Amino acid sequence: MEWDLTGGAKRVVADLKELAELTSDENGAQRVAWTPTWQKARDWFTKKAIEAGAEVTVDAAGNTWAKIEGKNPEAVLMGSHLDSVPNGGWLDGALGVVVTLEVLRHYGKGEAPNKTIYAVDWADEEGARFGSSVMGSSAATGTMNVSEIIDRIDNDGVKLRDALGAYGVMADEMLKASEQFKQRNIEKFLELHIEQGPILESMNKQVACVYGAQGIERHYIEFTGQPAHAGSFPTHMRQDAFLAAAQSALAFKEIALKYDAVCTVGKVSVKPDVVTIVPGKCVISLDQRSIDPKVLKQMHEEAISAAEKAAKDQGVSVRWEKIYSIAPTIFDEGLKELCRQAVEEETGEGTIMYSGPLHDAVEMAKVAPTIMMFAMSEKGLSHCKEENTSVEALETAVRAFLRLVDKVVG
Amino acid sequence: MEWDLTGGAKRVVADLKELAELTSDENGAQRVAWTPTWQKARDWFTKKAIEAGAEVTVDAAGNTWAKIEGKNPEAVLMGSHLDSVPNGGWLDGALGVVVTLEVLRHYGKGEAPNKTIYAVDWADEEGARFGSSVMGSSAATGTMNVSEIIDRIDNDGVKLRDALGAYGVMADEMLKASEQFKQRNIEKFLELHIEQGPILESMNKQVACVYGAQGIERHYIEFTGQPAHAGSFPTHMRQDAFLAAAQSALAFKEIALKYDAVCTVGKVSVKPDVVTIVPGKCVISLDQRSIDPKVLKQMHEEAISAAEKAAKDQGVSVRWEKIYSIAPTIFDEGLKELCRQAVEEETGEGTIMYSGPLHDAVEMAKVAPTIMMFAMSEKGLSHCKEENTSVEALETAVRAFLRLVDKVVG
Repeated sequence: MEWDLTGGAKRVVADLKELAELTSDENGAQRVAWTPTWQKARDWFTKKAIEAGAEVTVDAAGNTWAKIEGKNPEAVLMGSHLDSVPNGGWLDGALGVVVTLEVLRHYGKGEAPNKTIYAVDWADEEGARFGSSVMGSSAATGTMNVSEIIDRIDNDGVKLRDALGAYGVMADEMLKASEQFKQRNIEKFLELHIEQGPILESMNKQVACVYGAQGIERHYIEFTGQPAHAGSFPTHMRQDAFLAAAQSALAFKEIALKYDAVCTVGKVSVKPDVVTIVPGKCVISLDQRSIDPKVLKQMHEEAISAAEKAAKDQGVSVRWEKIYSIAPTIFDEGLKELCRQAVEEETGEGTIMYSGPLHDAVEMAKVAPTIMMFAMSEKGLSHCKEENTSVEALETAVRAFLRLVDKVVG
Repeated sequence: MEWDLTGGAKRVVADLKELAELTSDENGAQRVAWTPTWQKARDWFTKKAIEAGAEVTVDAAGNTWAKIEGKNPEAVLMGSHLDSVPNGGWLDGALGVVVTLEVLRHYGKGEAPNKTIYAVDWADEEGARFGSSVMGSSAATGTMNVSEIIDRIDNDGVKLRDALGAYGVMADEMLKASEQFKQRNIEKFLELHIEQGPILESMNKQVACVYGAQGIERHYIEFTGQPAHAGSFPTHMRQDAFLAAAQSALAFKEIALKYDAVCTVGKVSVKPDVVTIVPGKCVISLDQRSIDPKVLKQMHEEAISAAEKAAKDQGVSVRWEKIYSIAPTIFDEGLKELCRQAVEEETGEGTIMYSGPLHDAVEMAKVAPTIMMFAMSEKGLSHCKEENTSVEALETAVRAFLRLVDKVVG
């Protein structure tokens, strides 16, 4: 059956607006995982999926699955996440879930599709309450470290165990989602998402095939000098921990520019943090990303050298503590070609790029051939109520994604 | 009557040890103003002063005054403060009060001194609980802005009004201390204090005449850029507020070195302070000090230019907010010469220096010829339990100060 690309794109945007109306307030989207508003979004999706002809189930990790049985047992999975950060945007995650409703509507009528179609709403991609990103998808891939997160509490003192329990998820048994995943014969995963960055806008593009995601090296760096009185300690005798951090941060920027990658100092704290005392301690975070594993390694090594030099110049010591690291992900080559073609057919240009942020697709790429597609973000803004993509660009992206689904399902 | 310098110095050190024993715990001195331990220190001083033959009163601002009537109505005032910061040192402030006990003992026996002798324990020099330094001495000089501080609360939510009231001080009437001061015919003020810096130790000196105190320009500097995702925002498009602050802080150090003065960035905060978000806001404090008013002005102007350049380089905006400023103080020329002589007679060298920190003497210099003397500080440490001066150096400083008193009282 022919796809109604134009009508489908309009229906998806209408659905997105309906969802935003239902789950936003004056401060933005409030679909934080394991809260009533998130449940409202899930109920809305479930109802729409059933209306489209799908069978809906929830797995052991709280991921919502919608299925349309195909002629063959091999299944194509697509989706993203309905959960948002607090005061988030209307599109982050929602776009990639809502677009699947149009896929379900398409394959839910008439004869069975060539392959089984699964749409998924991954639970708690953002990790906004318990600090653990891609929770649902990493439970499904079996890579989640349950013991590491099980005792966490949110800012209000609520235990993860209790928060999840209220939505029918037994924290100790979340990894059963991995067994359930294996039984589904997923042979491919597709995800549409907004870019959350300014690159497509700066190139005047509306949509791109995303061929991979940057790897990350994330550390805390602690500089230790000597607190001293701001009036009585001569400059040349100081061991100023903040100045060592400042010098390092500027060096990290140069490293990022040199490799056309990113280095971010996002957290900064000094001690004792008093106007009249030279900081004896300064801790900063450093998040380094590159799509090239060799560059990532090189940048990390150069950052260590730069911090050592800064520490030496300022007469302080330096200590690194790893927070997190993940290797760069390069998505499936075959799917990349199909995705690039879909983008080109829709826009006349086969734009490709890689992702800066993490996504559920990065988890999925560990267990199945995967590809992503990005819709442009206005001003690169995301995780805020100002997050937006024009209706025109959204419709273009949806049409391109539907073309991709058509190519993959065949 | 001849001074017993050697015995006097030993008695002062013994008194200091007795006071430390009485008012310290394992974390250091706990003589925070308007607390029971501070009151214990004051009671101890009052008892010792009365034993020495002095008449003791407390003024409207909580300053304790000990008086020995002289042959002439002109009075010489000397003292410092018994209050400490929390977990402070045994000598900061206490040295300059305890040394007056030996002066009272000297003039309290035999015939009346040439001039009336006042010893004072200024209340709340540190401003540790309510953020207002030199409270007692600025009430006595009449420069205290009562309305500015009267509604302050401490970290435990206690009102300044109530905290002072518990020690018999009516906050609304503190400035009456200024009237009381004028009635005392104070013609000179002398203060012995520890250096709280490393300069004398680095020169291998034990004591110095302090001929002035640095002026201060203290500001908050707020840099405003654009928060952005650490993964999706290219380096060259960022408006990183922290990098502007970092670049400024390094420039401030160069300015300090250029003028042989000090510039300190002591407080630093970034927003949103998240590992994966480029800081959109960064606020730092800048404390600049010099003994030369022209240098202080020049340094401040150069700091403004440096911050503007840093803001421009990093694509952010910058805004300054004044916290506090005070012009450099040069103490009385005649007293400086007497003080230098006293130091030279005791040590063989007429060492002179200026003070980095503020002191009650800076307040007093507004209303009377004033001079200070410093005893060296080990490693320059102060405001901590490690604060120390060897007994030998303490005794040297006390003897030099007693020589100064002898010269001034005549």
